[in-house]
Amino acid sequence: MDNAAYIVFTPSGRRGRFDIGTPVLECARRLGVDLDSVCGGRGLCGRCQVLVGEGEFAKHGISSSAQCLGQITEAEKKYADWKGLKPGRRLSCNARLLQDVVIDVPPESQVHRQIVRKRAEARNIEIEPVIKSYYVEVEKPDIHHPSGDFQRLEQALKREWDVELHDTDLYVLRTMQDALREGDWKVTAAVRHSLGRYDEIIGLWSGVITQLYGLAIDVGTTTVSCQLVDLTSGEVLSVAGAMNPQIRFGEDLMSRVSYVMTQPESVAEMTNALRDCLNGLIVETSIEAGIDKKYIVEVVLVGNPIMHHLTLGLNPSELGVAPFALVTNAAVKVYAEDDLGLDICLGSRAYFLPCIAGHVGADAAAVVLSESPHLSQEITLVVDVGTNAELILGNRERLLAASSPTGPAFEGAEISSGQRAAPGAIERLRINPDTLEPTYKVIGCDLWSDENDFDEAIASTGVTGICGSGIIEVIGEMYLAGILSAKGVIDGGLAEHCARIKADGSTFSYLIRGGEPEIKIIQSDVRAIQLAKGALYAGARLLMDRLGIDKVDRVSLAGAFGSHIDPKYAMLLGMIPDCPIDKVSAAGNAAGTGARIALLNKKSRTEIETLVKQIEKVETAVEPAFQQHFIKSIAIPHESDAFPNLSRIVKLPKKESTQIIKESGGLSRRQQRKLKQAEIQS
Amino acid sequence: MDNAAYIVFTPSGRRGRFDIGTPVLECARRLGVDLDSVCGGRGLCGRCQVLVGEGEFAKHGISSSAQCLGQITEAEKKYADWKGLKPGRRLSCNARLLQDVVIDVPPESQVHRQIVRKRAEARNIEIEPVIKSYYVEVEKPDIHHPSGDFQRLEQALKREWDVELHDTDLYVLRTMQDALREGDWKVTAAVRHSLGRYDEIIGLWSGVITQLYGLAIDVGTTTVSCQLVDLTSGEVLSVAGAMNPQIRFGEDLMSRVSYVMTQPESVAEMTNALRDCLNGLIVETSIEAGIDKKYIVEVVLVGNPIMHHLTLGLNPSELGVAPFALVTNAAVKVYAEDDLGLDICLGSRAYFLPCIAGHVGADAAAVVLSESPHLSQEITLVVDVGTNAELILGNRERLLAASSPTGPAFEGAEISSGQRAAPGAIERLRINPDTLEPTYKVIGCDLWSDENDFDEAIASTGVTGICGSGIIEVIGEMYLAGILSAKGVIDGGLAEHCARIKADGSTFSYLIRGGEPEIKIIQSDVRAIQLAKGALYAGARLLMDRLGIDKVDRVSLAGAFGSHIDPKYAMLLGMIPDCPIDKVSAAGNAAGTGARIALLNKKSRTEIETLVKQIEKVETAVEPAFQQHFIKSIAIPHESDAFPNLSRIVKLPKKESTQIIKESGGLSRRQQRKLKQAEIQS
Repeated sequence: MDNAAYIVFTPSGRRGRFDIGTPVLECARRLGVDLDSVCGGRGLCGRCQVLVGEGEFAKHGISSSAQCLGQITEAEKKYADWKGLKPGRRLSCNARLLQDVVIDVPPESQVHRQIVRKRAEARNIEIEPVIKSYYVEVEKPDIHHPSGDFQRLEQALKREWDVELHDTDLYVLRTMQDALREGDWKVTAAVRHSLGRYDEIIGLWSGVITQLYGLAIDVGTTTVSCQLVDLTSGEVLSVAGAMNPQIRFGEDLMSRVSYVMTQPESVAEMTNALRDCLNGLIVETSIEAGIDKKYIVEVVLVGNPIMHHLTLGLNPSELGVAPFALVTNAAVKVYAEDDLGLDICLGSRAYFLPCIAGHVGADAAAVVLSESPHLSQEITLVVDVGTNAELILGNRERLLAASSPTGPAFEGAEISSGQRAAPGAIERLRINPDTLEPTYKVIGCDLWSDENDFDEAIASTGVTGICGSGIIEVIGEMYLAGILSAKGVIDGGLAEHCARIKADGSTFSYLIRGGEPEIKIIQSDVRAIQLAKGALYAGARLLMDRLGIDKVDRVSLAGAFGSHIDPKYAMLLGMIPDCPIDKVSAAGNAAGTGARIALLNKKSRTEIETLVKQIEKVETAVEPAFQQHFIKSIAIPHESDAFPNLSRIVKLPKKESTQIIKESGGLSRRQQRKLKQAEIQS
Repeated sequence: MDNAAYIVFTPSGRRGRFDIGTPVLECARRLGVDLDSVCGGRGLCGRCQVLVGEGEFAKHGISSSAQCLGQITEAEKKYADWKGLKPGRRLSCNARLLQDVVIDVPPESQVHRQIVRKRAEARNIEIEPVIKSYYVEVEKPDIHHPSGDFQRLEQALKREWDVELHDTDLYVLRTMQDALREGDWKVTAAVRHSLGRYDEIIGLWSGVITQLYGLAIDVGTTTVSCQLVDLTSGEVLSVAGAMNPQIRFGEDLMSRVSYVMTQPESVAEMTNALRDCLNGLIVETSIEAGIDKKYIVEVVLVGNPIMHHLTLGLNPSELGVAPFALVTNAAVKVYAEDDLGLDICLGSRAYFLPCIAGHVGADAAAVVLSESPHLSQEITLVVDVGTNAELILGNRERLLAASSPTGPAFEGAEISSGQRAAPGAIERLRINPDTLEPTYKVIGCDLWSDENDFDEAIASTGVTGICGSGIIEVIGEMYLAGILSAKGVIDGGLAEHCARIKADGSTFSYLIRGGEPEIKIIQSDVRAIQLAKGALYAGARLLMDRLGIDKVDRVSLAGAFGSHIDPKYAMLLGMIPDCPIDKVSAAGNAAGTGARIALLNKKSRTEIETLVKQIEKVETAVEPAFQQHFIKSIAIPHESDAFPNLSRIVKLPKKESTQIIKESGGLSRRQQRKLKQAEIQS
């Protein structure tokens, strides 16, 4: 046996021959294996854990860790006592190459691991945050060779990690003396490696700090949500949400802008209110995750253009009137504490994703990052529905963006029985086409209304209204059941056969549930939904015209509303263009996911900054074609060339005769509807 | 005559041939002539003024501006009405080349002009500040091509000035909308061109803003002084000073450090007190100069290490004990408003010069910039006397720095009749060697005490004490008059002959002025000065040893004290090494001048940052040789090898016999002193 041995690392497959006794971490470094370390090989951080792999050498019976990598060292025992070490695991800085061996680097020991997302079409997130922590042992001051604390720290980072600092924030200087002396000159520095900028220390703590955290914050008009993310594993440790406190200045965006127009000094008030809210969420998520918020070192923010401005203390008045000029459409990079007042690690920065245009915000940019239409050949329509619907259409060759003025109907506002998505709100509904009887489910209860124990199950909340996704189903089912015409008129002729259809002035209503409150759909509710979905569809059509296409390959429904609606009803109502139903998917909180991607992967920031410049912005407000599409889109689509996939999902009642039909004088629901359609088409 | 003409610019001598009708500014640009412009040739800023020169073409009778450069334009008339235009001056952007001409670019139209300093040995200041203003006309927002206000501003700066911005501060974004709209999209941007960093906007105002300002601030232990400087002309527009409000936490540096050691939270208090003081000085200098402080765009700060720390909110405790570790010895670059709370242009930065070592501060670095020993072949000793004396020794090859613990005697403290330099303090004094009668001058009065009307002239202030520079003269004159021995003993034997010499316990005192307060020199005063000057000299000797030299070529006395003492007495007392007296000069407020250099010339910052790293730091506290030199330096130097130049400046009384000498028994003062010297030397 000579004085060297082979080592093979999996999963990378990198291999080499090194002197017997070489630390495994050193072998990995020299082979360029992706193996993490914060403490620089001192056996303190536990980030370089490896295990002896099941490779070809294992066949020869070589599998004992002690045999291949030497006896467990004191440092490893100490680490195992302190933090625990799984069976078979070794700290690669302490383990030494003694004979030919296969070493397995588990995912959590890799620096550039990937987060695999569940949805097949969603791209994985590669972890490469702007911040990395480095443990160093700094030289003590020497009266014979005077130098600043910072300069000796700088030298240690250069010597041990080859990190070249430029200068540093005053914050860090102010805490540096204590950190160095309390830690007996052994400290962990959080270094910010932003692209195209100098590296700089943004936080410094005594001892070994292996876990740093970041926040992905979505500032919505109504709610603000905050994810606390582990920057090493990429894991979301906790999530908290709160009402946007700016609501007291105006429920919706435009009323907040109007408020600012009359009282410009309210910008600071609104920004301060939001700051307090964000600090509350920071405390909440930190407590839930059991971490100290001083280790939160980076923040990513997303929001619509007006929330973007009001978060940053920029006056949003210009966004309320044409030409809807943003202060900036570049990403905004600020100090989390100084500029935004966030109470986290003092030197940390906040990154607000770029807005796409005056009506298409950083939230839409985040949705693009999450859904990545620019990486696909398929023409994808991404729809994020809120008070405005933000639309992205295109593929890797070309991407367009627009905003459609849907109004708040999809959020349950302007609907007589509408309400926010909250326990007690109807979220699912089916109408028996024969009896016109509804059955429904409410948020907070797993039972349908016709199941036993439903009344008991909902006793605490009651049934209080219909949320946005519920309304879509109600309208869709009313249409399928023949209660609604394609033009959206509630058929008063049914009133004599069904007690749920009642005259309501010159129009009619459909009663879903009696009692207090009475839950029903009135004619103006249908109109509000028609206008909203018409605007949404018209926006999509406008973008399709621009792109010169008639159909889309895929539709991604982003946001809370998009996640809760059944794609079938979205297409039935004609909210979205026709598309194979299995290609319509809910993207969940895509804006939040996009924020998390920007938090975890620094290259994604450059990617979205570049992309946002290339996206073609279409302003619906000044496009005559938008109005034309809108007028054509108000009716509920019926069998037409534009919706070849619709008939595959709309299952009309098979039974032609029911009690009610008989009573109505022989015409089936289907026949009645066909008649009405003929009427419209003429 | 063809369609082109020659143009020659003076003083650069650049020349070229251009088409008839070419604007003179354009000719200058194309020839690389140093000719300023803020408005980009729109006839608004008046910075590109030129006049027809007295060159060779003048000989041919071509001298009329209108003849050579076309008729005065409307824009020029408008500018002349608004701001005035000296006879013969033309705006080069409006003047056109019509025939061969010599154009004179006056200094104030040059970008890179020089400030010529009065002292022959002082280097000139080349004006090249980090901030430059640019007037641009920004495109209005267009709904069909949505873009942010900032992006259109960015494009205008690129298009009109070839300035490439990176990103910008949130401050600027917050004021951008108003500036752009109030100025009808015509704005002036202050762009910061720091070395090795991206260019960025730090201020934005509507209209044409041609004058921007900076502050050069010297944070002294006792007083804080602030110069308001025009960044274009380099002129100091106003100066203000105030007591350092930290005095209430401790009169001298060490008592402030002790205070912090017992109450660490007082760091913030002291920093806040100083901030308020600085804001007061900013208001004062702005009002005096008649400018708006929002146009102050850059700040440079200097101070000793403890003031450096307390200005920046850094805990100075470590500077109070060995090994005297600074937080940082690099220059500190911070936000003037966010980090230091200075109420000036919101995006402006503050630059604190680097400290050299724990006892040799940024003030000493500024003195180096001002006195520039590193640019000379002569070995220069720069002495900045305060509570500690900071010493710089060397030349372009090698530079050493140290601090000597002189104590506060030179500032008038620890001296029985000592006081700060203020009206009523004795600053000059002569003793008649025959009569031992003193004559003196006090601050605030031009008369000597033996002149007529002296008593009336000082009636308002009285004679209240002796200031630092006064004490040096008093001790020097007492020695020359034989009242003091070289060992520093007041000669009690004279008491019987002269009523001014009186017994004072076991020692004697010398009365300068009776009355209330009685002004005299007691034995312990002499000792205090001996200790102080001994420490100063020992420090200088230590550095000379290190450099391996016996004499210096030049001595520069910096600071208020250094400026007021007569070099003759400094050398007579042995404060400084022997040197030809004409090579000893007062450098005035060299720290303030150094701060101004760093403010006006960005390259000087790199220069001092590099230099500070190269300066060899000598810690007097741990050098055994310092103690040895100190003990040897306490006596007042008498004819010795170390002081060959001394005898040239010490003029002993020629008259051997006076009334007093006769009464003393035949020995002249001179003879008496010689006797005493023999005694010492033995």
